[in-house]
Amino acid sequence: MNVGIVGLGLIGGSMAIDLKARGFASRVIGVENEKVNAAAAMKIGLADEILPLEECVAAADILVLAVPVDAATRLLPRVLDMIAGTEKIVIDVCSVKQSMCQVAYGHKGRDRYVATHPMAGTEYSGPWAAMPGLFDSRACIFCDVEESSPKAVREIERLYDALNMRVTYMRSDAHDMHVAYVSHISHITSFALALTVLDKEKDEKHIFDLASGGFSSTVRLAKSSADMWVPILAMNRDNVLRVIDTYIEKMKEFRDAIDAYDSDKIRELIDEGNKIKRIIR
Amino acid sequence: MNVGIVGLGLIGGSMAIDLKARGFASRVIGVENEKVNAAAAMKIGLADEILPLEECVAAADILVLAVPVDAATRLLPRVLDMIAGTEKIVIDVCSVKQSMCQVAYGHKGRDRYVATHPMAGTEYSGPWAAMPGLFDSRACIFCDVEESSPKAVREIERLYDALNMRVTYMRSDAHDMHVAYVSHISHITSFALALTVLDKEKDEKHIFDLASGGFSSTVRLAKSSADMWVPILAMNRDNVLRVIDTYIEKMKEFRDAIDAYDSDKIRELIDEGNKIKRIIR
Repeated sequence: MNVGIVGLGLIGGSMAIDLKARGFASRVIGVENEKVNAAAAMKIGLADEILPLEECVAAADILVLAVPVDAATRLLPRVLDMIAGTEKIVIDVCSVKQSMCQVAYGHKGRDRYVATHPMAGTEYSGPWAAMPGLFDSRACIFCDVEESSPKAVREIERLYDALNMRVTYMRSDAHDMHVAYVSHISHITSFALALTVLDKEKDEKHIFDLASGGFSSTVRLAKSSADMWVPILAMNRDNVLRVIDTYIEKMKEFRDAIDAYDSDKIRELIDEGNKIKRIIR
Repeated sequence: MNVGIVGLGLIGGSMAIDLKARGFASRVIGVENEKVNAAAAMKIGLADEILPLEECVAAADILVLAVPVDAATRLLPRVLDMIAGTEKIVIDVCSVKQSMCQVAYGHKGRDRYVATHPMAGTEYSGPWAAMPGLFDSRACIFCDVEESSPKAVREIERLYDALNMRVTYMRSDAHDMHVAYVSHISHITSFALALTVLDKEKDEKHIFDLASGGFSSTVRLAKSSADMWVPILAMNRDNVLRVIDTYIEKMKEFRDAIDAYDSDKIRELIDEGNKIKRIIR
């Protein structure tokens, strides 16, 4: 099986490592427009070769679009034009799915596309961030599978099985709403926390001294790259705005309770928040 | 050296373990009003014995107040009444320091008190949460040391040296401002995140499936106990309100940029937030 991976960053590169090491891919062909990244990917050994997109599509059985979601929405129709009517399959790994499915909607090659979102990552990016085992035992969401060829879906299930992921199925609109609520908002709260602390604490030494483990883990996601996150937030705008508004309301409830020295209300809010224990280890 | 520890929870219990194991304390005497916790602490072996407060003060050379800050402000004057004029020392480990120093202000035993804040912890609490090595290589802040006996300060530096902590010095009012900016706000943002997600996602299965590592680490602090955090937020009210207000402003900047599809502004905010990388590993 030849696997083509467009974008050998954290996600694409980590897929390349495990798909090759675990025998799913006999050959990994990378497409990487950034010269520095391409050189790094070859040096690290993420791909067997780097080719231009057209040659990669010609050589690959499965093509993985592992680029930011704005680039992926532009690439997908081009790739579908090339593979419509063949047995080749294209997947993407973006964390916004409705715009991906919309751009493929009605395309004569739509059945060759499987929309997937492997829920794994770190706050780092680029080929240097790629690592083995990144996907192990995490969830992968497949969206709108009824529009894909059943055989293609089974093949991609086999791919994620090699990555050791639990596959679940969802409509793309429901997916985008749920990831806004759980994943996208976590990133925004971290960015806002970093901005607040950097704004309030002009003296970095204090941040360093006072940053207990709590702060580090809460602010960790604020290291995430703009290249990935600007298009996610823009393309999942409506869901993201809705959850930010709820978040600001909750923050104001806290503010008002503290302002009023209302210990009962502060306790009620903390006790309610503690319920997350039941769900998250 | 006999060390008395009032409150054998996460912090007091973890101190008990290392002070004994590393030879600083020959005997650890606990004070623990909650019967269940007292029984657990003895079973786990956190203390050599559990005694009433008065007997513990009589037997101890150093007394550690490791209870929530509201209880600590009530206990400190009582303990100072008992040890004024002796060579005994009392310290507290609370994350709010100005109210502690204020309650001791002008007391005839003020010089026997050293105000300290070991910046370490986890989101768990109670004797079961105590662990060896909790304090290793973290920062400990001493406040208003000029009001303490220099000999007592040196003795307590020795204690934190046994716990492997870096000691820094700060005024209690500056301390409370800085911890609000770095530590307290992290907890509030986590609580608000948990409340938002629990409110928006009625189906817990979705939270579980979609919670990638990012969400878990950002929401981790929302498991922290109300017993500890209600008094901290109330007693550091003014600083906490100020930082919440800045935080809400930053969040609104994000919201407005996303609302306007203003990619340049979103990128600018993320790039700025990324600067936290320089400070936090």
